[in-house]
Amino acid sequence: MMKTVEQIAGGVTAARGYRAAGAHAGLKHKRSDVALVVSDQPATVAAMFTTNRVQAAPVLFDREQVADGMAQAIFINSGNANACTGPGGLADTRQSALWTGAALGIDPSLVLICSTGVIGVRLPMAKIEAGVRLVSAALSSEGGDAAAKAIMTTDTVDKQVAVRLKIDGKAVVVGGMAKGAGMIDPTMATMLAFVTTDAAVEHAALKACLAAATAESFNRITIDGDQSTNDTVILLANGMAGTPLLTPAHADWPLFVAAVKQVCTVLARKIVEDGEGATKFVTVTVNSARDAADARLAARAIANSLLAKTAWTGGDPNWGRVIAAVGYSGAHVVAEEAEISFDAVCAYSRGHVADAIVLAALEAVMQKPSFTITVELHLGSASETVYTCDVSKEYVQINSEYTS
Amino acid sequence: MMKTVEQIAGGVTAARGYRAAGAHAGLKHKRSDVALVVSDQPATVAAMFTTNRVQAAPVLFDREQVADGMAQAIFINSGNANACTGPGGLADTRQSALWTGAALGIDPSLVLICSTGVIGVRLPMAKIEAGVRLVSAALSSEGGDAAAKAIMTTDTVDKQVAVRLKIDGKAVVVGGMAKGAGMIDPTMATMLAFVTTDAAVEHAALKACLAAATAESFNRITIDGDQSTNDTVILLANGMAGTPLLTPAHADWPLFVAAVKQVCTVLARKIVEDGEGATKFVTVTVNSARDAADARLAARAIANSLLAKTAWTGGDPNWGRVIAAVGYSGAHVVAEEAEISFDAVCAYSRGHVADAIVLAALEAVMQKPSFTITVELHLGSASETVYTCDVSKEYVQINSEYTS
Repeated sequence: MMKTVEQIAGGVTAARGYRAAGAHAGLKHKRSDVALVVSDQPATVAAMFTTNRVQAAPVLFDREQVADGMAQAIFINSGNANACTGPGGLADTRQSALWTGAALGIDPSLVLICSTGVIGVRLPMAKIEAGVRLVSAALSSEGGDAAAKAIMTTDTVDKQVAVRLKIDGKAVVVGGMAKGAGMIDPTMATMLAFVTTDAAVEHAALKACLAAATAESFNRITIDGDQSTNDTVILLANGMAGTPLLTPAHADWPLFVAAVKQVCTVLARKIVEDGEGATKFVTVTVNSARDAADARLAARAIANSLLAKTAWTGGDPNWGRVIAAVGYSGAHVVAEEAEISFDAVCAYSRGHVADAIVLAALEAVMQKPSFTITVELHLGSASETVYTCDVSKEYVQINSEYTS
Repeated sequence: MMKTVEQIAGGVTAARGYRAAGAHAGLKHKRSDVALVVSDQPATVAAMFTTNRVQAAPVLFDREQVADGMAQAIFINSGNANACTGPGGLADTRQSALWTGAALGIDPSLVLICSTGVIGVRLPMAKIEAGVRLVSAALSSEGGDAAAKAIMTTDTVDKQVAVRLKIDGKAVVVGGMAKGAGMIDPTMATMLAFVTTDAAVEHAALKACLAAATAESFNRITIDGDQSTNDTVILLANGMAGTPLLTPAHADWPLFVAAVKQVCTVLARKIVEDGEGATKFVTVTVNSARDAADARLAARAIANSLLAKTAWTGGDPNWGRVIAAVGYSGAHVVAEEAEISFDAVCAYSRGHVADAIVLAALEAVMQKPSFTITVELHLGSASETVYTCDVSKEYVQINSEYTS
């Protein structure tokens, strides 16, 4: 029998032994704004954090909390990032963890805290305390939906996915939820993602698995080139599926890694599809670059070019802005060697430009909600793919009005 | 008597011995699209070109033409960038220079060519030939205005400036014109600038002078972070003021350099003020950075942050997006040491955030058409200033409709 990863319904509570909840604690005007994810027993934990040099209090706190490799609960608030709030902000995060531990009857050293929202405003601690009580009382194995909704900021839809696979013949589930919307850039973003599994996984292996999955998913998406102070991806593995402890030596290890990658990739794509004001999902692939660094520079420059992104919004197959972006990216490029295609339609090939008939085909590609731009540099063998979206007038509208 | 640089009326024909013209040759639908600037006698020339690795045919051509240090005429077309057009495009540029030389009765080795507009479309050579005839016939010492209008693309106003100074007691003029609008980034942009002077200047000194002036002006502006394939700044010095040959050894050398810097700075500011869809002119200053590289990284990241720029459009004094940009810029920053001000109003100081009264003052600053954001990092003594503008819905509108 072929070993496969099968997509199933659900999110962060799809795996055995996880409960979650979401509630309205008053940080936001109307929508739910606090969430809790809890494992029935302490889980092995791996986490990835923003590379921004300005890091929010919960990021500083969680880095210490995950060092021992174990966690059991994650309390999340939206509406306030608790960033640039000084030592007082860090104390607020510690206090939130104390309240959460007390409400759940677990050691606060097993509690992680995440925040997303406005920078530079202290948390309203009375509301946080009430919020901890609300979500602790509402925990449910069907609570994944409510939690996924409570972590949204300018997201227009909640983002969840779950998959099932078999390890030693036993069913294992990996599920997750994420929030994104703006400030999304490779090497993480205002992006929170939570992945849970009932597999049992050795700590170092779990960290390596999450690092690999993040590199191929969350670190390949970009909406506006802005990285946030709060980005966090957390992976919990509670072992409640009853499978043996996974390590890279296990025959099913590649399947488990593939499952985590699939969950992360689906969540990452959902983040880009729901990018603020986005109307197009664009895959940018750079092939035959001189080396991996060049491929990455070129793909990122295209994906973050404001001129390219506004052309996509207008349905303009503007390959000139694409090659101009490659040119200033720092990557090696020889215009007379390069080729640029939109899906399967070649717009520019080694100095030759699309004629009127091809232009009509290019314009048809641009009408699609999702397309791929492929650049062949013909200078080497390195490739890179980045997922991004257009910049529309709605993006400007959202970000000129939302204080974040 | 104090030595000063005095601003006067005029532009590229303000200095002695320069004539110019602009005309409509049909590259654009209605507006004038070809320009010519000619010195009555061969001039010493210095030029700076785009650092984009994809360089348009006229950039490749002009690099060779200026190597001998002499030039007499510049033919410019808007509406077509002649970029990514292969060997045929380069032949078109050479042919344009041959026609211009013939029309003016000068050696074509003294002719420079500049193009700006759509990438990847061959020049309509019949229109170029007719255009060369039109502008050659229309040359006038009052033609600076017409030339400045003919080089515009999405510019909404023409950009000209002239200054007068005295060298050895004799009046010398430096004048210029530029076009900008989109694709503007430090280390040059879709930006063409032409500066003329009747001073006599030694070739190496002229090159050093232009490099210094460009570093403090055109290389300090950014609109959208996109660099073009065509950026060019050309400085002609024809010596017709009758002043002695200037070198750095001359007592008035610093004054001459100051005059060229002033012309370049005024033109650079005009470009940002007329940025596509711009409603705010924003000066970003980063002080007390660890070193010059950090100061530059931080200032550029703020100036190019799409989230910061959309906040400015909305009148939101969002210092959180400013510090987040510094954080991901790669520059060293300690949030607890930093301070951020909008004009003289401090928004954030070492972990302390503006209160409601200060917030009202900050919002008042944001209503101004022009303001300065100052970031103090308190980690060293390096500073950098960058000039930029906001990103409005009009920017998106313009760039989703204009094929460039």
